Parts: sequence; structure tokens; C-alpha cells
Amino acid sequence: MTRQAYDVIVIGSGPAGGIVARRLGEAGLDVAVVEKDGWGGVCPLRGCEPKKTLADMSHEILRVRDTAAHGVAGNVRVDWASLMRFKHSVIDPISGRVFDSFHGRGITTIQGEARFTGPDTVEVEELGPLTARHIVVASGAVPRKLGIPGESLLLSSDRFLDLENLPESMLFIGGGFISFEFACIAAAAGARATILHRSHRVLKGFDESLGRKLVQAMRDQGVAVHTDHPVKAVEPFEDGVRVIVSGPDDVEMEFVAAAAVSGTGRVPDLDGLDLGKAGVESGERGIKVDEYMRSVSNPVVFGAGDCVEPGHPLTPVAALQADTVVRNILDEGSARSDLSGTAGAVFTHPTLACAGLLEEQASEQGYDFKVFEGDAAKWSEHHRLGMAHAGYRVLVERGTGRILGAHYLGAHAEEVVNIFGMAIRHSLTREDLLAQPWAYPSFGYTVRYMLG
Amino acid sequence: MTRQAYDVIVIGSGPAGGIVARRLGEAGLDVAVVEKDGWGGVCPLRGCEPKKTLADMSHEILRVRDTAAHGVAGNVRVDWASLMRFKHSVIDPISGRVFDSFHGRGITTIQGEARFTGPDTVEVEELGPLTARHIVVASGAVPRKLGIPGESLLLSSDRFLDLENLPESMLFIGGGFISFEFACIAAAAGARATILHRSHRVLKGFDESLGRKLVQAMRDQGVAVHTDHPVKAVEPFEDGVRVIVSGPDDVEMEFVAAAAVSGTGRVPDLDGLDLGKAGVESGERGIKVDEYMRSVSNPVVFGAGDCVEPGHPLTPVAALQADTVVRNILDEGSARSDLSGTAGAVFTHPTLACAGLLEEQASEQGYDFKVFEGDAAKWSEHHRLGMAHAGYRVLVERGTGRILGAHYLGAHAEEVVNIFGMAIRHSLTREDLLAQPWAYPSFGYTVRYMLG
Repeated sequence: MTRQAYDVIVIGSGPAGGIVARRLGEAGLDVAVVEKDGWGGVCPLRGCEPKKTLADMSHEILRVRDTAAHGVAGNVRVDWASLMRFKHSVIDPISGRVFDSFHGRGITTIQGEARFTGPDTVEVEELGPLTARHIVVASGAVPRKLGIPGESLLLSSDRFLDLENLPESMLFIGGGFISFEFACIAAAAGARATILHRSHRVLKGFDESLGRKLVQAMRDQGVAVHTDHPVKAVEPFEDGVRVIVSGPDDVEMEFVAAAAVSGTGRVPDLDGLDLGKAGVESGERGIKVDEYMRSVSNPVVFGAGDCVEPGHPLTPVAALQADTVVRNILDEGSARSDLSGTAGAVFTHPTLACAGLLEEQASEQGYDFKVFEGDAAKWSEHHRLGMAHAGYRVLVERGTGRILGAHYLGAHAEEVVNIFGMAIRHSLTREDLLAQPWAYPSFGYTVRYMLG
Repeated sequence: MTRQAYDVIVIGSGPAGGIVARRLGEAGLDVAVVEKDGWGGVCPLRGCEPKKTLADMSHEILRVRDTAAHGVAGNVRVDWASLMRFKHSVIDPISGRVFDSFHGRGITTIQGEARFTGPDTVEVEELGPLTARHIVVASGAVPRKLGIPGESLLLSSDRFLDLENLPESMLFIGGGFISFEFACIAAAAGARATILHRSHRVLKGFDESLGRKLVQAMRDQGVAVHTDHPVKAVEPFEDGVRVIVSGPDDVEMEFVAAAAVSGTGRVPDLDGLDLGKAGVESGERGIKVDEYMRSVSNPVVFGAGDCVEPGHPLTPVAALQADTVVRNILDEGSARSDLSGTAGAVFTHPTLACAGLLEEQASEQGYDFKVFEGDAAKWSEHHRLGMAHAGYRVLVERGTGRILGAHYLGAHAEEVVNIFGMAIRHSLTREDLLAQPWAYPSFGYTVRYMLG
């Protein structure tokens, strides 16, 4: 059997793998990229991009609704069929473009599932062994299984983003960002939406009190949010499903709806890779890598994106980790991964966003800090938009004045946290932010209200 | 005649004067604030705040229109009467709140026009002389006169923001940000809007090529934009006005409309102050102050906001200059004004914004720089929103990689330039911005597209 040898084999063609393959291809290396599913990965095909397309349009409806008494007359609604047509027009060409982007750079594309057969060798289904100086694992993540009876009756997030017709009622299982974003879209588009979450705290990874405020906002939009409602089983019921939950005091309850969606988080997609054969160490949160994004146990292998342990399952993190991998493959030891100031957002209406540390993390890490917090709904910036639920919590280190973390629920939250992310990354202080000549009116300017 | 003596007299109760008076009052000083017009000044009563209220709602209409084929069905329109009612509900209480904010801090309020009668003395109409250790001039700016026959037939910007009914056709005289913002509002609300500008270049202070792109966007919205059309005279005509312009090749042309609005810029409001009596030097662009915001010719007098020479006529600049004045009055020589990274925006749809230097300024100042530029309409972020006109130009110093200036036309432009403003102020580089883990999708993240 012939052994095909490359400089670099990349497993996965998503944001992380795509960047690695293209940049190394451009640098003249002989690169092969292996993809078992759609070219481009989850983010553009079944994640951020389609979600944001649906969310942007749904939020348009909610914004108009918020300002009905402010001079915006008339009615708008989501036309789901038209929205889906538009989504397809945006998303469907992506795979082809990604595929072409590899070929245009002389990169070998291999469709199929890769598995390690040795420290520097993989096989892809029927293909003979492929070897490389470096193998980059960027296999992403897959939805976490609930492990309950009837789970197969739940729609996956992929399916939700591809629904030809919007069911009139929908249950979203799980209280993380996926369920919140989807429920917001579904409710704005006219469905009755209900979130069922097993524990008390929703939106792990985001500020708890602002999460509660968001729950209020969602309820105002007609989304029912039930916490402490762990799902026990799913059954068919008439044309839809029945979801059995264990409610308060362990009383069994039933929710019926035309459809139920699994909005649980994702876990690293490593099962089929046979990492053991390559001596690549991994844990529940992914492949263990060092600060150079290199496997701690096999120097041939690098990792980037949702399938590695450090960082957050976020596209920009994947992109930055990919940058680091590229640099270290081209020039060993030249780049360390630094994710300080990472910002993330839940694209609901309003948007909940964060940068840096949560309050509990800052406490655990022994920081001495003050929390600047308040209600932001009364700001004229929000009042104009009819936004009734908004707030902020910014952690400022005592003594130095450095920003440790920032949490914000409101309009343009995904932009505002970028400012705080920059401050965190570059050790800028509360005084620095107060002295910045921000554009006015802008939501960036509101840091003066938050920190003043 | 008794001489009433204060620690500090503040002339003007706008953003600059208000901050100075309140902060010094809180610090225990005996402060008097003099206001000749509405308490709170132009920005909250007749500037940014009412304008942004009208603009936010008008842009809502335009956003819905942009996304008609993207799944947002139905129709919305501006209900002008309802919009004005809402605007009044927002704006009308402000003066009272500002007034109360002074009284709550034990500050003396004096309604009337102040004029200097000596280096440390002012009189306010019939009141006897008022003296102070320091006098802070924060008198703001007034619309520039055109000096043409029939000028009094033009509506002021104050009047535009207060129109009970929207005229069916409107001419906007001047090609600066006020005309652009107002024309965008008027057209979105259903009026036929025309901008008449005397010279070739519109939107001075903003990037020229992006300004041209904005003109295209405005034309798509039904706004006619005529450059090289200096206005010669205004005459009554039927129920409206006739505006005489000198068109191309000096051919005289007429435009008729139900109303015409003067959208010219503002000049420092110093005429009634008798600055000469106090030996306070000023020029066309305002009072000459040093880096401590102190008059260069009278150490008793400080200045802040639109009536001083340095900086831009922007509310955040006024607020920062006021901060500087406060610090220097409380602790002489303790604070220097630093406006580096100042950001500004034209609140049209899309928004045009800038931070730092224009290309011509960077050239004049001898920088060696590269311009990163491109069309931003093709980004999926804009495509989703149906935004057909968007672009960017970022000036990056060769060698250091420092950001010198950034110009951006697109969605959330007023937020994106804040990021560049921070980079400029803190000497961050292109590499720094590429390495930042921005929220995704966010418009902040697009700096990776711009600089990649």
C-alpha cells in the first residue's frame, strides 16, 4: 500500500481548519484537508451564519414592536418561507466557495472521516495511509447527547435552522445560548416558544443577574422560560411531541408542542479520530495542547478550535488559534496563544454579552475588585429604542483600575463588549475609558455612564 | 452696587458647562451658572438628542425596507405626529431635570445673557456685577449665517427638529452632516428631500470617497444631492419657498419646495460676551485656550466645548474638556486636554464615521502610511441587512503598524470607530487589532476583514 506524504494534513474545514489549510497552502506547503461533512464547517453552514441571518430579521420585528408608540407605524412579521429562501441564498453557496478556496491554493481536498493509525498517519475511509510532518486537528464539536428516552424525536439545531415551515409551538430543551437565541427567533416569527432548563441558572458563562434580566425580556416577548425543569423523556404526541419533565418537588409534568429542539451545548468531536493510536491526549473538553497549540503528548499534532481544551467554543477563538498554529508550523515556537479579552454574545433581543472574567471567576482568582453595575434601560439610548430590559456589570480591579470583566445586556451589546475586551487585553483602566473621546451618541459612549 | 462674589461662574449650561458646574458644586465650591436659553444647552434640547430620536425611528423604516426580500414582510412608515409626541416626551423634561441638578447641588442658577465687564467680572442683564475666582465660558455655538437675501425664510435646525407637520418637499441648504442627517430623516418619513451644497466636496471632516458612497446610498433612498450648487437667495413661493442657486456654468436655477432648512455648520457663540472687556483672546474658531483649557490671555477664564478653538464641536469633546477644566480649577495644572482618537459620526443610513486623521491630514503631517480600503457591502454582515453601500479606509503607519485614522461607512459605524479611536489613543497596531478575540458576529470583528 502506498503512503501518500504531505507537509500538513488538516482534519476539518471549518473556521480553524480552513485558515490553517489556506495560509499554509499560500506559504507553499503541500497541504491536504479532510472534511467528513459540509465544506466550511459548522459556523458558516449550521451555526453562527444561518443563526445570525434568522436572528437579524427576527430582531427587526421586535425592534419595530418596541417602538410602536415612538412614531413607527404599521406592522411587520416574519415571512418564514421567504426568510428561509434568503437564508439558503446566503448559506448554500458557502461550501462551494470554501472548496474552491482550497483548490485555488493547490490544496488537496479529501471528503471522508479521518482516523489516526499512528503518530503521523491517518486513514480516510478506504484511502491508504496518509502521512505528514504535521497533522492539525480542527474537527470542531457536535451537540451533546441528553441520554434520555425518545431523544431522537428532538430536532437538532441544524434542523431548526433549516425548517421549511415554522411549527406553531416549540419547546427548546436546555437553557444555554442556543435555546435562548432560537426561542427568540421562533417567538418573533410567531411560534409559541418555551425553554425547559434542568437547573436554576441559565446561560452558563454569562453574568447571572443579567441572565435573569434577559429571562424577563424574553417573557415579555412571549417566551416561557422554566428553570429547574430537567427533561426525562420525549414521546410522540399527535402531530408533535410530548416532553416529560421533572418539575418542582419532583412532580412529573408534561409539555406538548408541535416540535421540540435540542438546544444543549456542544462537545468536542473526537470520537471517530482514534486519537489513542497517535498518542494524542484529550479530555472531556478536548485535545490537550500547550500554549503553541501543539498536542502535549505528540509533537506532530496541533489542534485548534472547538476540539481543543483551552478557550471557548467561539469562532474568533478558533481563528486566532489557527493563526497560532500556522505561525508555529512555519516557524517553530514563534507564537503563543493569548485569548485575553475574549468577548462573546447571546444574540437575543436585547443581546447579552461579556468580555473577560465573570464575577465568580474574578473572586476565585483572588482579585480585589469593585463591581460597577446598574440598570441601563433608563438611558436615553435605550429609552429611544423602547428597550425595557438592559443592564451592566463591570469588574474593576481596586488600586490599578484595570478592567477585569464586563457584562452587558442591551442594544449593540456585542459591540460594547469589544471595547471592554480591548481594555482587558491591553491593561487599560477605568480612567482610560472615561478619558476616551467616543463617538456620540453611540453605545461605546455609555462606558462613561457605566464607570462614571 | 453690590458685587456678588462666587468661586466660579459658568456661562452656559450645556454638556460642558453642566459638567463643570455640577462637579465643582459637588466639590463644595460656590458656583453660579448662567444660561440665556434652555437649561441643558443645544445637545440635549435642539441637537444630538432630538436628532437621534428622529434618526433612530427613521432608520428603522429604512432597515425594514432594506430587508423586504429577506423575510421581513409588511409595511412600516413614520407617523410624524406620533414621532413628535414621542420626541417631546423625551426632550421636554430635560431642561427641568438639568435645572434641578444644579439646585440639588446648591448651585446658583441665573437666567439671562452674560457679558464680561472686566477680567473677573460679568453682568447678566439687569443684575449687578458678579465676580469669581474663575469664570468658565461654555457658551456653545450657533448656526452660521449664510448672508443671503431671504435667509430668514429658511427653517433653522431647531425648527426642523420641532416640526408639527412634515412638509411634503424640503430643501436642505449645505452639504454637511446636519443636512445629510435631516434629509435622511425627512425622506424616510415620506418627504421629497433635496440637498443643495455650494462646493464639490460634501461632509467636510469625513473621508471624501466614503462621503461619495454615502451620496449614492442617499440617492437610492430618494434624496437628491446637488453639489456645486451655491444658494444665492431665498424667496417666498406659493405656500413654500423658492431657492435660487448658481448651478453649473453659472447658470441660475430655481428649486421650489414646501420648506427649506438651513443645514449649515455652527460657529462659536461669543458675540454677546464682550470678551474684549476681559482680555480673552478668540478667533473665528473660538476662544484660544492652552492645554489646560485656560484662556491664553486671561488666567481667570477657562473655556470648554464648542466655543473654544481646539478640538471638534462634539459633545464627548465638550465633556472631556469640561473634565479637564474641573481638575485644573480644583488642582491647578493637574490635567492636560488630550483628544487623540476622537471619533465622530454622521447618523445617516448607513452611518459614516471616523476616528483620528483624514488621509490628507496624515499626508500633511508627514506620516508614511498605507491605506487599507475596500468595499464592505459584500460582507455577509451587511448582505444580511440588505445594505448596498458600505466601505472602509484605514490608515496604518508603515514600520510601526500604528493606526493613524479610520473611516467607515456601514452598519454600526459609530461603534466600530470607537475601536479604532481606542487603538489610535493607545498606539495599538494593526497586529494588535488582528489578534483581538472580538465577539462574533459583530461589526467589531470586521476589523479582521479590513486589516487582514
